[in-house]
Amino acid sequence: MSLTFPAPSADKAVQEGAGVFAPAFDANGLVTAVVTDASDGELLMVAHMNEEALALTIESGIAHYYSRSRRKIWKKGESSGNLQTVHEIRTDCDQDAIWLKVTVEGHDATCHTGRRSCFYRTVAMTEDAATLRILDDRLHFDPATVYGTDAADTGTK
Amino acid sequence: MSLTFPAPSADKAVQEGAGVFAPAFDANGLVTAVVTDASDGELLMVAHMNEEALALTIESGIAHYYSRSRRKIWKKGESSGNLQTVHEIRTDCDQDAIWLKVTVEGHDATCHTGRRSCFYRTVAMTEDAATLRILDDRLHFDPATVYGTDAADTGTK
Repeated sequence: MSLTFPAPSADKAVQEGAGVFAPAFDANGLVTAVVTDASDGELLMVAHMNEEALALTIESGIAHYYSRSRRKIWKKGESSGNLQTVHEIRTDCDQDAIWLKVTVEGHDATCHTGRRSCFYRTVAMTEDAATLRILDDRLHFDPATVYGTDAADTGTK
Repeated sequence: MSLTFPAPSADKAVQEGAGVFAPAFDANGLVTAVVTDASDGELLMVAHMNEEALALTIESGIAHYYSRSRRKIWKKGESSGNLQTVHEIRTDCDQDAIWLKVTVEGHDATCHTGRRSCFYRTVAMTEDAATLRILDDRLHFDPATVYGTDAADTGTK
């Protein structure tokens, strides 16, 4: 990684304007990354990036994240083949969130459960409780075959 | 708020399946909320919700967040009129992120800068630095008129 980023500007007009990209990493050194499919805009996943993951993503054009549970850089799709080629990177007004528009290689699946998107469930109210209903149950790959029976190395945390 | 949520299940199959909605709030009691426009899927903003904000959102059908900078519940659009009516709520595999599909009232603008989306800038590489280019500079409202000159009460943090 050779790319580094300056600290966010205390001047709101600068931080919200054109020019320098100065991501506002949080106390844990992370920004939120929202990932959508470049073809149709479907929301695929939400993850986190540290400075190294963000630099690697920009430099390589392949999405890298920071795994909070494994505490290391995570090249998405390295195990499953479902690499993410980045078509566009955007940031939000205060630069603490990143939006990646990607094409998913391999099985065209982002979720470690084998589904296209991690957001395969909707929240429904039933009487006094909120319950989850599965909207998309099509598995693009078999997680046990791809990841093995040790599922510790999966998920978006 | 009357709605409460159970603790996430330690059983991955339960947490990733249909049934109980058990959001995985982080150490600060927050989940990430991704907000898209129900009409065309445009990514509008990323924010955070605590248990109360999530319950208020489900119960009222109007998006509520938790402002980390102001440390309080934030009914989005209360100052600007740009309330968000929620059409669908989804969650991701490990239930630490929420996706809201909304219709924006008022000026049809979500960003406190007056733009439709907070993600109005793209990241471009120029020589050895990453710079920001503004893609959407159309202001749907004048922030100074709507919020006053004290801009402390704005932003998505």
